[in-house]
Amino acid sequence: MKKSEKKPAKRTWNTVAIVGVGMIGGSIGLALRKRKLAKSVIGIGRSRASLLKAKKCGAVDTTTTDLARGVHSAELTIVCTPVEQIAGHIREVAAACPKDALITDAGSTKRAIVEAVNGTLPEGVRFIGSHPLAGSEKTGPENARADLFTDRVVVITPVKGNTVTDAKTIAGFWKSLGARVLGMSPAVHDLAVAATSHVPHVIASALAASTDQEDLALVAGGWLDTTRIAAGDPELWRQILLDNRENTLKALAHFQRTLDELRAAIEQQNGVRLNELLLQGKQRRDAALT
Amino acid sequence: MKKSEKKPAKRTWNTVAIVGVGMIGGSIGLALRKRKLAKSVIGIGRSRASLLKAKKCGAVDTTTTDLARGVHSAELTIVCTPVEQIAGHIREVAAACPKDALITDAGSTKRAIVEAVNGTLPEGVRFIGSHPLAGSEKTGPENARADLFTDRVVVITPVKGNTVTDAKTIAGFWKSLGARVLGMSPAVHDLAVAATSHVPHVIASALAASTDQEDLALVAGGWLDTTRIAAGDPELWRQILLDNRENTLKALAHFQRTLDELRAAIEQQNGVRLNELLLQGKQRRDAALT
Repeated sequence: MKKSEKKPAKRTWNTVAIVGVGMIGGSIGLALRKRKLAKSVIGIGRSRASLLKAKKCGAVDTTTTDLARGVHSAELTIVCTPVEQIAGHIREVAAACPKDALITDAGSTKRAIVEAVNGTLPEGVRFIGSHPLAGSEKTGPENARADLFTDRVVVITPVKGNTVTDAKTIAGFWKSLGARVLGMSPAVHDLAVAATSHVPHVIASALAASTDQEDLALVAGGWLDTTRIAAGDPELWRQILLDNRENTLKALAHFQRTLDELRAAIEQQNGVRLNELLLQGKQRRDAALT
Repeated sequence: MKKSEKKPAKRTWNTVAIVGVGMIGGSIGLALRKRKLAKSVIGIGRSRASLLKAKKCGAVDTTTTDLARGVHSAELTIVCTPVEQIAGHIREVAAACPKDALITDAGSTKRAIVEAVNGTLPEGVRFIGSHPLAGSEKTGPENARADLFTDRVVVITPVKGNTVTDAKTIAGFWKSLGARVLGMSPAVHDLAVAATSHVPHVIASALAASTDQEDLALVAGGWLDTTRIAAGDPELWRQILLDNRENTLKALAHFQRTLDELRAAIEQQNGVRLNELLLQGKQRRDAALT
């Protein structure tokens, strides 16, 4: 895990295409347009209603449901569709975009996508995976925000076969939207986000699902924050959790061991041990903010 | 669980004493003073430094480290100390306050406190338990806010021996600070908050404690929200979890069953079941906001 270099040249683009103009794709479009980083931003999607929303909120200049036509002159395309569809969309983009174009994505998992795409793209077209850590339980272009990436981390996962120049270009793209960029391998990425994103989602869902309806009158800030991400789209999260299945199970086992220790301390009325474990949690939480 | 009646007479007080002027106690003082509900608010605590902070931020009119002197002329005293100390402090207050005074508290658990106090107070002095669901990971009078109780739920737990008039007075007190008041038995309260507050705390702590230091660079909104309450004071939470031990273990077992189902669905790559469980979590989370 290493930080990319700072202050790359802030590049502007003639045409950027965004496949899937939801919350993330829409925010990329808004940020590009607000920061005047592209002459033209093209939104590509299946639903005309959703594309219309994206256009209305200023996320894109033009829209089309025809992917091939949409990416035809795009120097850069960002695929922002659900995880299961990303590899397929990258291949579709690669088949129709200019020969020297760059492609990236915004998927929450990276290993399977990079492996599926690696070595399958037409000569000249290059893909480097990205994951902006800026998701939320909200979906749709109506929740897009031009400042979504400001000071947020975006992981990029260049692999053997990618050039340093291309990695710098993709890193520079995200930085130009205000993000901090970290480079790491797809495998390291997937292992880390299992612990920091996918297990939290499983836990939040379990907590929300296991809370009895009649107790909801007594939920307050604690429960609401702990379960916030459980409001996310089940279909998107099913895809993420199954894509990153092994890492998620591993991280879940790790969580389970700590939970078992906490439960044992409560069961045995072991105040000293309970205090230790709660303090360990507090210190890790506090450390995340520094 | 029933909602108390709306629109009680908004009573003002001559003297209100607050034992323990931390985040909750300080917020009560700020709200009383801002809303001009008491002629005098007395802050009582052990630490002169903390009392000074409370006075500086406008939470109290006067302060003292002498509990007996502080409650001497208080018509109402609110005990806002850590759970383990509340029953003892209530008895100390009762021994020194006016003969017809009312006492309440702000403890996160109710059964043990109410049982410990029941039948032990001097004739004329009455206690009714309260729990404002307005806690946070923050502590100290410096985090007190005059609007902390606005639209928040406060549970009051009147029991056999309490009069309807006193219950209405205590309910009216919290409503005058902007809160919504629910009345229930101490046992029902403790069972419900085990699920909505104490188990979320255990889970948040386990998640924070089990996240590796080197993965913290990749935490984003999801992890941060899910673990927020783990930043709370370990000492306070040890007391709460051990006080409400049996209910917390019961609610934790309930959570564990749902978590096991989620893990099994991931393990078995059962997308249909995984979707169902995620949807169940989403629906329960969404329902909490309506």
